[in-house]
Amino acid sequence: MRIKLINPNTTRRMTDAMGRCAREVAAPGTEVIAVNPTMGPPSIEGYYDEALATPGLLAEVAAGERDGYDGYVIACFGDPGLYAARELARGPVIGIAEAAMHAASVLAPGFSVVTTLARTCGMAWHLAERYGMKRFCRNVRATDVAVLELDKPGSAARRLILDECRRALDEDGAEAIVLGCAGMVELCAELEDALGAPVIEGVTAAVKWTEALVALRLATAKRGDYARPLAKRYDGALASFSPGGPEPVAEPLGGLVAEQGY
Amino acid sequence: MRIKLINPNTTRRMTDAMGRCAREVAAPGTEVIAVNPTMGPPSIEGYYDEALATPGLLAEVAAGERDGYDGYVIACFGDPGLYAARELARGPVIGIAEAAMHAASVLAPGFSVVTTLARTCGMAWHLAERYGMKRFCRNVRATDVAVLELDKPGSAARRLILDECRRALDEDGAEAIVLGCAGMVELCAELEDALGAPVIEGVTAAVKWTEALVALRLATAKRGDYARPLAKRYDGALASFSPGGPEPVAEPLGGLVAEQGY
Amino acid sequence: MRIKLINPNTTRRMTDAMGRCAREVAAPGTEVIAVNPTMGPPSIEGYYDEALATPGLLAEVAAGERDGYDGYVIACFGDPGLYAARELARGPVIGIAEAAMHAASVLAPGFSVVTTLARTCGMAWHLAERYGMKRFCRNVRATDVAVLELDKPGSAARRLILDECRRALDEDGAEAIVLGCAGMVELCAELEDALGAPVIEGVTAAVKWTEALVALRLATAKRGDYARPLAKRYDGALASFSPGGPEPVAEPLGGLVAEQGY
Amino acid sequence: MRIKLINPNTTRRMTDAMGRCAREVAAPGTEVIAVNPTMGPPSIEGYYDEALATPGLLAEVAAGERDGYDGYVIACFGDPGLYAARELARGPVIGIAEAAMHAASVLAPGFSVVTTLARTCGMAWHLAERYGMKRFCRNVRATDVAVLELDKPGSAARRLILDECRRALDEDGAEAIVLGCAGMVELCAELEDALGAPVIEGVTAAVKWTEALVALRLATAKRGDYARPLAKRYDGALASFSPGGPEPVAEPLGGLVAEQGY
Amino acid sequence: MRIKLINPNTTRRMTDAMGRCAREVAAPGTEVIAVNPTMGPPSIEGYYDEALATPGLLAEVAAGERDGYDGYVIACFGDPGLYAARELARGPVIGIAEAAMHAASVLAPGFSVVTTLARTCGMAWHLAERYGMKRFCRNVRATDVAVLELDKPGSAARRLILDECRRALDEDGAEAIVLGCAGMVELCAELEDALGAPVIEGVTAAVKWTEALVALRLATAKRGDYARPLAKRYDGALASFSPGGPEPVAEPLGGLVAEQGY
Amino acid sequence: MRIKLINPNTTRRMTDAMGRCAREVAAPGTEVIAVNPTMGPPSIEGYYDEALATPGLLAEVAAGERDGYDGYVIACFGDPGLYAARELARGPVIGIAEAAMHAASVLAPGFSVVTTLARTCGMAWHLAERYGMKRFCRNVRATDVAVLELDKPGSAARRLILDECRRALDEDGAEAIVLGCAGMVELCAELEDALGAPVIEGVTAAVKWTEALVALRLATAKRGDYARPLAKRYDGALASFSPGGPEPVAEPLGGLVAEQGY
Repeated sequence: MRIKLINPNTTRRMTDAMGRCAREVAAPGTEVIAVNPTMGPPSIEGYYDEALATPGLLAEVAAGERDGYDGYVIACFGDPGLYAARELARGPVIGIAEAAMHAASVLAPGFSVVTTLARTCGMAWHLAERYGMKRFCRNVRATDVAVLELDKPGSAARRLILDECRRALDEDGAEAIVLGCAGMVELCAELEDALGAPVIEGVTAAVKWTEALVALRLATAKRGDYARPLAKRYDGALASFSPGGPEPVAEPLGGLVAEQGY
Repeated sequence: MRIKLINPNTTRRMTDAMGRCAREVAAPGTEVIAVNPTMGPPSIEGYYDEALATPGLLAEVAAGERDGYDGYVIACFGDPGLYAARELARGPVIGIAEAAMHAASVLAPGFSVVTTLARTCGMAWHLAERYGMKRFCRNVRATDVAVLELDKPGSAARRLILDECRRALDEDGAEAIVLGCAGMVELCAELEDALGAPVIEGVTAAVKWTEALVALRLATAKRGDYARPLAKRYDGALASFSPGGPEPVAEPLGGLVAEQGY
Repeated sequence: MRIKLINPNTTRRMTDAMGRCAREVAAPGTEVIAVNPTMGPPSIEGYYDEALATPGLLAEVAAGERDGYDGYVIACFGDPGLYAARELARGPVIGIAEAAMHAASVLAPGFSVVTTLARTCGMAWHLAERYGMKRFCRNVRATDVAVLELDKPGSAARRLILDECRRALDEDGAEAIVLGCAGMVELCAELEDALGAPVIEGVTAAVKWTEALVALRLATAKRGDYARPLAKRYDGALASFSPGGPEPVAEPLGGLVAEQGY
Repeated sequence: MRIKLINPNTTRRMTDAMGRCAREVAAPGTEVIAVNPTMGPPSIEGYYDEALATPGLLAEVAAGERDGYDGYVIACFGDPGLYAARELARGPVIGIAEAAMHAASVLAPGFSVVTTLARTCGMAWHLAERYGMKRFCRNVRATDVAVLELDKPGSAARRLILDECRRALDEDGAEAIVLGCAGMVELCAELEDALGAPVIEGVTAAVKWTEALVALRLATAKRGDYARPLAKRYDGALASFSPGGPEPVAEPLGGLVAEQGY
Repeated sequence: MRIKLINPNTTRRMTDAMGRCAREVAAPGTEVIAVNPTMGPPSIEGYYDEALATPGLLAEVAAGERDGYDGYVIACFGDPGLYAARELARGPVIGIAEAAMHAASVLAPGFSVVTTLARTCGMAWHLAERYGMKRFCRNVRATDVAVLELDKPGSAARRLILDECRRALDEDGAEAIVLGCAGMVELCAELEDALGAPVIEGVTAAVKWTEALVALRLATAKRGDYARPLAKRYDGALASFSPGGPEPVAEPLGGLVAEQGY
Repeated sequence: MRIKLINPNTTRRMTDAMGRCAREVAAPGTEVIAVNPTMGPPSIEGYYDEALATPGLLAEVAAGERDGYDGYVIACFGDPGLYAARELARGPVIGIAEAAMHAASVLAPGFSVVTTLARTCGMAWHLAERYGMKRFCRNVRATDVAVLELDKPGSAARRLILDECRRALDEDGAEAIVLGCAGMVELCAELEDALGAPVIEGVTAAVKWTEALVALRLATAKRGDYARPLAKRYDGALASFSPGGPEPVAEPLGGLVAEQGY
C-alpha cells in the first residue's frame, strides 16, 4: 500500500525527518511518501497560518487521488484541513493529533499534551474536544519553543521539552505524554527513555493508524459530510481548485498548480 | 462607525442582498459596506468549499484593517475563517451562525436551524457546540435547496423552507427558527409572519451584534489565541499573504491581491 | 425605542449609575429608563436575596408591559427572575450575566468572571452553564468586596478588583474579564485601561444586546416555556400578582402595588 | 424527628393528600407535618407562578426553623426556592424532583418523566441537568392535564397519564417512570400495578430521603453558597422577610406573616 | 425489612465494623446483616482486585435472593459488580459511592472525595461521572493510606485523612467531604466534629437509602439492562454460577459454593 | 510480534472464526493466537455474564504475560475486564468496541452500532461515553438475535442485521456502521458490499490497532491506574488468582488453572 504523508508547512527538512521516522515504523509492503506544499507558511503557529496552509495541503491530497494513494496523513498537530481532505479522498485521512490522542487514550488513563507556543494550546483543546478525547486530556502545556527551533543543533529546545513533560507527569497526574508538534518527531524515543512513561508522537501513530485502516479495507464514508465536493467553478486566482464533481478534483487543479510553479 | 460585511463566496447578488438587509437594521451613524472576494467558490456547501473561501475572506479582513474598519461580519453560516480573522482584526469579528444562535438563545428556550443541503448539517452542529449553543439547538434540518436556488424567481425554495420551519416547530418542539444560510436573508420577515414564531437570520443579527460591541468600545482580545499572526515569510503562490508582524498584514498582501486582478 | 433597565435591588444610587452608563452607549433614538423596585433587598448576595428581589422585579416588568416598553434588561449579575420575566414580556428580556458572557465569548477564547462575594461564585458558574458559556469561562473569582462598598469613596474595592483581574489574566489564562456585579458598571473603562485586555460589563452589554434585538424586530417566543402565565387567582398577600391570562398582568397588579405603598 | 413537608402552592387539598401519603411511608418516630403558604398561586405551572410561590415557601422554612424542624421537603416538581431554602435551614432540604430522580437512577438504567403541562417540560429538563440526572432522563412527557384536574372525580386525567407512561416505556425505552407533579402523589401505586415497572413519586421519595439524612445526622453545609443569608434590612412590602444574620430569619418575618393574616 | 450489607472483600473485621455502624442508623424494624465472601481479595485497591471480588459478591447476592432479602448494599467505594448484582436482585441494590455522592449533592454545592490510594482516584472519578455526580465533585484526593491500615491501632491514618479533608475544604472549595473507602466508616463522626462540615460516609448512607427505597416499595426495574440474567450453562470452574433463567441463580450456585469450601 | 486475541466467552467456534479473520488482516511478521477461557459463560449477554467471564479472561492475560505476548485484544463488544487486564499487561490491551469506535470516528462523521440483544445497548452507550466516542455515536440498535444464533446455518440473523444496518443509515443519519458483537466478525465484508458504507468490525480493528501500537514500541502506562496489581494473598477458591507484586501474576495462577483442568 502507498500512504502519502503531507507536512502542511513548506519546511522540507521537517518533511524529511517525518518521512524517515514514518518509514522506520511502516510494515513490510507499506510505502510512505512524505511531501509538503511549496506554497504557504513555513511553520504553522496560529489559525491564520493554518488557514493559509490548507490550500497547499488540499492540492497535495487532490494530486494524491490522481496518483492512486491508499491513505493520507496530515502531519501538523492542528490537523488543518482534515475534513476538507476527507471530502477529496477515497481512502482514510488521519490527522496526527487525532492518531496520537487515540493511541494515548488506550495506553493510559490520561495524557498531557506538550507543545510549542502557548497560542496553540487552545487549538489542541479544541481538537481534543472534537475527537472526544477531552476526557483523557489532563492538560495542554506550552514550552515557548518556536517550531523551527526544534531541530536546530545546540538549541535548548530538548531540555525545555523534557522539563515540561516531567511537570506534566508530576503536576497534572498525566500517565502518558502526547507530543503536540510534528516537529518533535525525532525526540520521541529519547523522551520516553528519560521519562519512563509512554510518549506518543503523532506522525508515526498516524502512519500506523492509516496503514491499519487500509489493511482493513476501510475507506472514508461518502455519505454525508465527507461526500465528494460538489462540482462548481471557482473564481479568480483559485479557479484551478474548482472541484470537478464525480471525478476527483483533477485536471483543473493539476493545470493550476503547474501555473503556480508548484 | 464602519462595519465590513464579508460574504465569503464570490456571488455578488447575494452580497448585495445582504448589504441591503444590513443597512435596513443599522443604527444611525453605522455604515455597513458589503463585499465579497473575487477568488474562490461561488457558494459554500462543504468543508472543501469553506477551506478555499477562506483565503479570499482573510484578504478582505486584512484590507479592512488597512482601511480602518471598526468591525467585521463573516456572512456565511459556516463562519469560515472566524478565528484566523480574529487574529488579523483589532475590532470585533462576528460570524452569522454565532450571532443568530446567541440571539435565538435569549429569545426562546430552544431553536432549530433550517438550512440548505444535508451535507452542511454536521457543520451547523459543530458550530453550535463550539459556541456553547448545542444545549439550545433542538435540531438542524436540511431542505435540499442549493444555495444559489434561494433567490431564483419562481423557485420552490421558499415553500420548501417554510414547510421545514413548520416541521421544526411541530416535531422538534423548537420555539424559534434560525435560518442556516446567509442566502436566506431576505426571507426572514416573510417566514416570521407565516410562522408566528421568532425567525432569526444571522446576517442582520451579526451586524447588530458587531455594532453593539463597537459602541461598547470592545475589541478582540490580543492575548492568547487571537494575537496577531507571527511575522513570517510565506512561500510560493501565497507569499503575498505573509503576515507582517506587529503591523497588519498589509503591503505584501495588497501587492498580491492587485496582481490577481483583485 | 424604549428599554426598561431594572435594577432588582432597591438601592437607588446603583440604579442611577447604571442608567447613566446605559445612556452613554445607547444609540440615537433609544431611550433607557432605569428603575428599581421599592420592595425587597437593597443588595443581592445569595439565593434568598434573589428570591425576594424577584417579586419587585416582576412587578416592574408587568408595569413595563402596560407602559409599552420594547425590551428589558435585568441588571443584577445573578439574572434573577429572567425566565419569569420572559413569560410576562412581549419584547426581549436580557440578563446582564447573559449579555456579558455572550460578548466575552465572541471577543476572546476565554474569560474569567471577577465578582464580589465568594458565596455568589456558584451562581455565576450555574449561569455560565445555563447559557452554554461554561466552555468559555476559565474561572469565577471573588474579591470579598460587599456590593454596597463598590461605590463608596475611599474604599479599597477598586484596588482589590484590579488585582483580582490581573490574577485572572495571569493565573487562569483568561484573555478577557467579565465583571460579575452590576455595581461595577462604572469601573469598566478604568480597568480596561489598566489591564490592556477586554473588560466586559453586563449592564451596558445587555442594553446594547436588547437594543439590537428590538431593532431586528425580534421578540420573546410565545410558544413553550415563555408563553404568558396562565390566568389564575393568587391568594393572600400576593393576590395582586395574579396573572390575568391573555392580557398582560395588569390592573390587579397595579392595584396591589398601590396598596403596598409601592 | 420532625419533617416539614411544604407544598408551595396554596391548594389545601393537595397538601392534605401529600401529608397522607407521606405519613404512610414514614418510619416509626418520624413526624411529617404538611403545610402550604396562604399567599401565592394555587398551582405552579410556569416560571412566573414559581417565582411568586417562593416567598410563601421561604416563610414556611423560616417558621420551621423557629419551630425546630429537622428537615424539609419542597413538594412541587419544579423544586422552587430550593437553594434559598437551604440558606435558611440547618437540616436537609430536599426537592421532590431531586429525590425522585435520584431514586429512579439507582433502580433503573433510565427513566422518563411524565408531567402535566407541556410548558413545564423545559423546567424538568433543567432540573435533571442541575442534579446530574440528565444522563438517566430519557424523556420528559406532558399529558396536557392541568394540575388541579388531577384529583377531580371523573376526570380523564388518570387514563391520560397511564397512556403517557406506557408510551414512555415503549417509545423512549425508559425502564422506570418519574411522576412529574406533586399532584400525582396518590396515583403512584395504581400506575405501578398497571405498568409493571417502577413508578417513582417525589413526595414520598423526598420524605424518605430527608428522613434518611436526618437519621445520619447530616445537615446542610454552611460553608459557601448555602451559608445563612447575610443580615440586611429589606425594603417596603417585603421588609418582614429581612434576614436577621446569625439567628434565623425570625421575629420580623413572624410579625409580617401575622400582619398578612398568615 | 431485611437488608444484606455485602463487603466485597474478605476481611471480616471490616465487615463487622460496617455492620455495627449500619445497625446504629437503621430504623426500628430494619434488620441489617453484614457479610463478606470467603473467596477473593482481602482488600480492593485496583481494577484487578475489583474483578476478582465480584464473583464472591454476586454469590452473596444470589444467596440473598434465595433467603428473601429486601435490598442490598455493596460496601466498597468502587461499587464493584453493581449492575450485575442488579440483574440478580428483585429489590434495590445500592453502592456506597452512589449513596454517598447522592447525599453530598443534596447537602452541599460541591464535595471532595478523600480516599486511600492514588491509584483508585480514577475509579472514583469514573463513578462520579456514571452517577451524574461529576458536576458536584470538586476533587478526589488520595492519602496514600492502605485500606487495611485504617483500623490499625496507633496508625497515622486518621491524622493523614483529617489533614487531607482540611485541604479539600480549603484548596478545592469543597463544602462537604465524601469518604472514599468503606474502611473509613468509623471515622465519620470524629472527622465531622473536627471539620465543622458535612462528612458523608457511604456504608451508612447506602443502608438508609436502601431502607428508604424498600419502604417506598420500589424495586429494581426488570425491563432492559437489569433484567434477570439469561438462563445458560456456564463452563468449567464457574459452572455453579450458571444463571437459571426465570428463577434466581439458585441451587447450582449453592452447590458450587459448598464445593469450594465456601 | 505475537498478539493474543482473547474471546472471553467459552465458545470455541467463535474463537476460531475470530482467529481466521484476524490472521487475514495481520501484517507479515505478526502472529495472532486466538484463545478462550474454559471457565465461564458461553456467550456474554449482560452484566452478570460479563462479570463471570472476567476471571477466565484475566487468567489468559496473566498466562500471556508469562508467555511473553506483545499485546492483547479483548474480543467481546462489552470490553470486559479491560482495565484489570491493563494492570496485568506490559504491552497494549485493546477492546474491540474501543478499536471499532476509534476507527469509525476517523472514517465518518458518525456511526450507529448494530448489536444483538436490546439488553446490551446500554452497555454500548456506556462504552461510547467512556471512550469519548458518544459524540460520534448516532444510535445503538438491537436486532434481537442471540449471540450464538449468528453463525448457525440457515439462521435469519444475517437478514435481520442487514435490515437494521439499513435503518441505521436511513433513520439515524449514520454514515458508517459499527458491528456490536464479536460474533459478527465474518459478516463484515458482506454487509459492506450490500450497504455501500463503511462497516467496522471490532476484532480485526483491534488486532490492527494493537499491532500498530506494538510496532510503535508503545506500552501500557504503569503510572497510576494501570500499575501492576498490588501483591496480596487472595482467599478461598480464588487464591490462585493472587497477584504476585513486581512479578506477573504467575505461578499460583498457573497452578490453579491446571487444577481446574484449564
